[in-house]
Amino acid sequence: MAIKATIPLKQKTLLEKGDKLYQPGISVDCAIFGFHENALKVLLVKIKQVDKWALPGGFIYKNETIEKAAYRVLQERTGVANIFLQQFNAFGEPDRSDTSIHQARYLEYGIKIPKDNWLLQRFITIGFYALIDFTEVNLEDADANEGAEWIDITKLSNLMMDHENIVSKALEALRTQLAYLPIGRNLLPKKFTMPELQKLYETILDQKLDRRNFQRKLIGFGILNKLTETRKGGAHKAPFLYTFNDKKYQKALKEGLYGTW
Amino acid sequence: MAIKATIPLKQKTLLEKGDKLYQPGISVDCAIFGFHENALKVLLVKIKQVDKWALPGGFIYKNETIEKAAYRVLQERTGVANIFLQQFNAFGEPDRSDTSIHQARYLEYGIKIPKDNWLLQRFITIGFYALIDFTEVNLEDADANEGAEWIDITKLSNLMMDHENIVSKALEALRTQLAYLPIGRNLLPKKFTMPELQKLYETILDQKLDRRNFQRKLIGFGILNKLTETRKGGAHKAPFLYTFNDKKYQKALKEGLYGTW
Repeated sequence: MAIKATIPLKQKTLLEKGDKLYQPGISVDCAIFGFHENALKVLLVKIKQVDKWALPGGFIYKNETIEKAAYRVLQERTGVANIFLQQFNAFGEPDRSDTSIHQARYLEYGIKIPKDNWLLQRFITIGFYALIDFTEVNLEDADANEGAEWIDITKLSNLMMDHENIVSKALEALRTQLAYLPIGRNLLPKKFTMPELQKLYETILDQKLDRRNFQRKLIGFGILNKLTETRKGGAHKAPFLYTFNDKKYQKALKEGLYGTW
Repeated sequence: MAIKATIPLKQKTLLEKGDKLYQPGISVDCAIFGFHENALKVLLVKIKQVDKWALPGGFIYKNETIEKAAYRVLQERTGVANIFLQQFNAFGEPDRSDTSIHQARYLEYGIKIPKDNWLLQRFITIGFYALIDFTEVNLEDADANEGAEWIDITKLSNLMMDHENIVSKALEALRTQLAYLPIGRNLLPKKFTMPELQKLYETILDQKLDRRNFQRKLIGFGILNKLTETRKGGAHKAPFLYTFNDKKYQKALKEGLYGTW
């Protein structure tokens, strides 16, 4: 008989008391997008027993709000805290749960999950998303990190269950938000060039944009201050620097980029 | 002893087999907004035993998607079918369920619900919304109608649990949608005047809009055809008639009112 690992208390509790502790049949999953220098990544957790990636997710305590559960689960599994999570969709295909993943995780401890255990029921999951600068999160430092990594959005593969679909629906929600709300405040240096801002939009939208249209549109939003400084050092003509106009940026966050009616 | 009503099979099944038939602890609720001639209403069901109004809602069968449950529940409780429901938010305050409402409904049949019955657990609900022309729905004809009525959005009172909050969050979602998607195609006569279109927006937004700004903005969207006809009969100068440009309206539905990047 192969020597099995000792089951950690957390996994033991989940199996034996999950039905007492948590809401039945419901979970939360977080699609955390990270942008930095023209790369868009998503935060995934490695499920080593099945060699698959998963969104950081978990369950809702019987006396906990959905939102609190999402923040707690994200912090417990990745160490990431203090970011704004936006609820966007519930996913509930009847066959979305994959019990073989749970079985594989417990088999490591020599445990076969009983057929009627609450972990093996159908779960509906409530999705949250966020967009942050991924260099501001130190995953290595987090005690909680269960093997969380930033994976390039263009290189997703081997995600468990419907998690790739959840990522793609979260991206859709983010792109819709881009059409009526400002973005970039915490993703770009304080002073940035128009090409840098355009690159941010291009990366999130995954498409090339026309330089002139983009510039006209963004300036039209009235949320930028053009500085007299230029960015020096390049081979090309030094591009002008911009900052966000804090007051107008905040106003646009509330009222939308195209203003009130 | 007072003579009690005989319990209908539907209610009996819900109580005795609900835990076998439905997903535990999760429900769907539909906020159906109806517009007609400058009135915005919401479709509510009367819970006569407690004299409160409720959104049409219900449970998700073990083998049913969330979306299918929402369409089924809406039709079962109000007779309304063939409308597009948009999922918008899940509501999960731990204390949002009100067991006294279930108790009152079963007390009518002389039944006290056992404390451990599945109906009395905490429920998280997934909200859907839609906007339709309420004159196109004949509530009186529907066999399924459990006392559903269109209630003016400005006169809501006595809603059960957190349903007034769900209505208000659904209205927020609808107003956000108004900022980037066209609206009105099925809510106005085929030919309409600019004041009629403005009234639609004013009713949904619950605010007066500036006539000139509104006209400039809507014409700017490029989804209207101005006709050479005018609306005759009024005391004032006859206003021009407009129709939606079908092709451009559909394009704006897909790409947003402000076009692609």
